[in-house]
Amino acid sequence: MVRRRRMVRSYTDEPVDPDTVDRILSHALRAPSAGFSQGWAFLLLDDPLSVMTFWQVATSPGEGGDAWSDGMRRAPVIVVPMADQGAYLERYAEPDKGWSDRDESRWPVPYWLIDTGMAALLMLLTAVDEGLGACFFGIPPGRTDAFREAFGVPADHEPIGAITIGHRAPDGVRGSAATRRRRGPDEVVHRGRW
Amino acid sequence: MVRRRRMVRSYTDEPVDPDTVDRILSHALRAPSAGFSQGWAFLLLDDPLSVMTFWQVATSPGEGGDAWSDGMRRAPVIVVPMADQGAYLERYAEPDKGWSDRDESRWPVPYWLIDTGMAALLMLLTAVDEGLGACFFGIPPGRTDAFREAFGVPADHEPIGAITIGHRAPDGVRGSAATRRRRGPDEVVHRGRW
Repeated sequence: MVRRRRMVRSYTDEPVDPDTVDRILSHALRAPSAGFSQGWAFLLLDDPLSVMTFWQVATSPGEGGDAWSDGMRRAPVIVVPMADQGAYLERYAEPDKGWSDRDESRWPVPYWLIDTGMAALLMLLTAVDEGLGACFFGIPPGRTDAFREAFGVPADHEPIGAITIGHRAPDGVRGSAATRRRRGPDEVVHRGRW
Repeated sequence: MVRRRRMVRSYTDEPVDPDTVDRILSHALRAPSAGFSQGWAFLLLDDPLSVMTFWQVATSPGEGGDAWSDGMRRAPVIVVPMADQGAYLERYAEPDKGWSDRDESRWPVPYWLIDTGMAALLMLLTAVDEGLGACFFGIPPGRTDAFREAFGVPADHEPIGAITIGHRAPDGVRGSAATRRRRGPDEVVHRGRW
């Protein structure tokens, strides 16, 4: 399923089986996380009003009416994976880790974002496995507050993007991967040293 | 393979087939990336001297001699996935994206870290598929410079951690996931709104 995965940017109006959505979400919860912190949350939008609200608040003003938006907005399901940094700081303040100062500089990289990204990838892969299409895309920085307000998301939960899920339509806009060259191992793998 | 994946913290001294390592790395290159930026690089350490050097430079002084280190240091292969932020800024400065100011504030979250994390997860999953064990772990912030110097890694490439790969030994140290409860959908999935 790794090789079959592609971002799908256009969907039919066929609904997605709720059991399938449950399986997709249950796999997200199988992502690895530093110290098993599991500092993530998922906003599931699977009714037309919620989905419409998402597009209203989480996209740039004036966006829409183009092929990308038309295709994407037909997706019946959206999942927004969110990272909870506080859960990581709390987890590592426990005795077995001992970072009781909760100092962020102890973290080489923000694993709350990386782990939540891994959860997102597991949803993309599971969608493929279930015969569905999915697309992971960003929420513009200026829209995060409006998104949080619309759905009651606490300020300490950071959306890392959103995932559309649905049945694939044949007319999808092709992404950058369709026209740009994939980098090969000879370009990105360095053996023994750089 | 999603459900079978566990972090493996102890390895036998059996070598890993180089073809298997190639397959693991080729799957990493199948990770999604914003704008197909593919802003990543992978340092492959698969000889005893390189692996020993890694443990000398990339761990805290005085570390070692415990069960975790003993088990982990037997892994014959280490891959260090690194994120290249510059590749993203360059990619999005191209005409089809148009962020020619290369302004970082346009980015809601650092997709260079998230995408490289997704590449790391694909390596963990592929290792399971190949009958091997693997473990993703962090490099302490204070050791990044020594790591870069030892292996000639440019300053603009950020290691997001490291992955040990090898044949699983039965005596591995159990991680947090063995003793802590997995969070369920009722705790982390919010339907329609928070």
